[in-house]
Amino acid sequence: MKTTTQNQPANPSKIMQIGMGFWASKTLLTAVNMNLFTHLAEKPLSGKEIQSKLGLHTRSLYDFLDTLVALGFLKRTGIKETALYSNADDTNIFLDKNKPSYIGGILEMSNNRLFSFWNNLEEGLKTGLPQCETKNGGKPIFEAIYADPKKLKEFVHAMGGVQMGNFIAFAKGFDFSNYKTLCDIGGAGGNLSAQVAMNNQHMHCTTFDLPPVAPIAKENMAIFNLNDRVSVVSGDFFTDDFPKADVITMGNVLHDWGKDDKKTLINKAYQALPNGGALVIIENIIDDTRSENAFGLMMSLNMMIETPEGYDFTASDFDELAKEAGFKSTTVMPLTGPTSAVIAIK
Amino acid sequence: MKTTTQNQPANPSKIMQIGMGFWASKTLLTAVNMNLFTHLAEKPLSGKEIQSKLGLHTRSLYDFLDTLVALGFLKRTGIKETALYSNADDTNIFLDKNKPSYIGGILEMSNNRLFSFWNNLEEGLKTGLPQCETKNGGKPIFEAIYADPKKLKEFVHAMGGVQMGNFIAFAKGFDFSNYKTLCDIGGAGGNLSAQVAMNNQHMHCTTFDLPPVAPIAKENMAIFNLNDRVSVVSGDFFTDDFPKADVITMGNVLHDWGKDDKKTLINKAYQALPNGGALVIIENIIDDTRSENAFGLMMSLNMMIETPEGYDFTASDFDELAKEAGFKSTTVMPLTGPTSAVIAIK
Repeated sequence: MKTTTQNQPANPSKIMQIGMGFWASKTLLTAVNMNLFTHLAEKPLSGKEIQSKLGLHTRSLYDFLDTLVALGFLKRTGIKETALYSNADDTNIFLDKNKPSYIGGILEMSNNRLFSFWNNLEEGLKTGLPQCETKNGGKPIFEAIYADPKKLKEFVHAMGGVQMGNFIAFAKGFDFSNYKTLCDIGGAGGNLSAQVAMNNQHMHCTTFDLPPVAPIAKENMAIFNLNDRVSVVSGDFFTDDFPKADVITMGNVLHDWGKDDKKTLINKAYQALPNGGALVIIENIIDDTRSENAFGLMMSLNMMIETPEGYDFTASDFDELAKEAGFKSTTVMPLTGPTSAVIAIK
Repeated sequence: MKTTTQNQPANPSKIMQIGMGFWASKTLLTAVNMNLFTHLAEKPLSGKEIQSKLGLHTRSLYDFLDTLVALGFLKRTGIKETALYSNADDTNIFLDKNKPSYIGGILEMSNNRLFSFWNNLEEGLKTGLPQCETKNGGKPIFEAIYADPKKLKEFVHAMGGVQMGNFIAFAKGFDFSNYKTLCDIGGAGGNLSAQVAMNNQHMHCTTFDLPPVAPIAKENMAIFNLNDRVSVVSGDFFTDDFPKADVITMGNVLHDWGKDDKKTLINKAYQALPNGGALVIIENIIDDTRSENAFGLMMSLNMMIETPEGYDFTASDFDELAKEAGFKSTTVMPLTGPTSAVIAIK
């Protein structure tokens, strides 16, 4: 058999693991979507109890649950009819819907929307066109979400959950000593503002988003007892000026848009900042060599699937746009996993 | 932040990696389906050359290719317009369609069939019913494949490719010294028989499958110059008796069927064997604790997606059925990755 350059026998296992990876992915997404881990966070359950709670058929019950054991998401004592299933530690923290640490929103969305859209990746690559609801003349998903207060609240919490670790890392790690005010553009539930306010007692924050989001952000700030430290302001970040602030942040906003819209938003941030002020972009910033941050590159493919012109970018792509807008310098601040902040100083 | 029992900070990265794993999976499957690696096996290509060969749009061209770089399937010099892409070593061996070591058949099938069927995993778990072509009254895929000689040949080669490593490991590792003849039930292109004959000069093999498969198996044996050592026999393994042989093998056959059909096939093997003869089942045998071989467990879920009653099984499940049929003893022989042979002696 042929060997690789390292003189290891050639081995197809990585190809098979990633190529067939949609099996493990869909198994986990399905479990999240059926709230399996939320049920198990209350108490360990037998297969029969899970079957009844989730409305499952007998045929694949134990194959499904034992796959989640083998993948490390569940723990189990006994086997089949004598089995008692419980959550693995990380699962219990991050996939129990009743905990604020729940990050399953993005996984539910993947189960119910993205998995089927990504099945048309080849068509997207060949046409450059989105493969989401709008593909066959459907309504953009955001219109449907924003029209329904309950769905909107779920969505805002879902997106907030998956970003929380990065907001905390930014709020704790960024040097706010020269600044007094921050405005978070597209701030959704206000989580970034809340984290900055909680971790930096001298900062006053403004969270800025469309009017339907304001009640959710206000409710959140009340829970954190931060109504006097975080202002909730409504507006459209394309048609309205940004509120003036020493620091302007945008989390997962720029990647939704094409190059011209990205420039518009960066220019508007420049206008709203004082000299020395900072624009902070928190996203899955692609590494400058475009050969390491696979998740960031695939997020960019996801922007093709989901938006007409959006794409993710490297720190040097950002540097170019920021310099063009007049910013003096840019730096990168790694946050968690594939996410970084890129920071431009006026 | 809460910590796990190992006192490591809780970390959602494994949940995110597997949950969003369908992105990497579909990116690789799409590349295989478009023959990207087959083109690159001829010579390294620029992004523009790849774009033209594959008919890709400009928008996501480099995001797609650089994702494959970041995942380790492609190598690259330069970047974007100056980039030259080539296959990574394993990719070049296993995903070039012009090499006999090609294993992409199962990945093409996953891209074009299984990915979309698996999107209905939740429905399958709730109904116990297949989610493949037959779901809405469609023709079973095998009928369509068997009716078209070209498709059948592709399919037989595809399935043979992914099994080849296991057939080689079995042919080299199994002790054939007490045996003279082998019959491979559901032998498809005859690869298992060919490997046993090539690696064990005293063995005569018979590959047994439905009549449309015979010409493909005969052509294969001619290529290997094995026509005098491997007989190609046509028949239906449910309606016809098995040819008598010292060793009866079945590769990925039993898992297609429910318990009663499994018993029927094991009994028929028992009838065809002499005392001391061996029945050898080559599949993704699930570990007896049902907590380690995730791929085997998911293959069993795949049998729910694809068949009315099929399921994968453990070595002790097999031991039970084999003893019931009259076999004296069973053993397990690990082959490659998640695959093993379980062996019953009459």
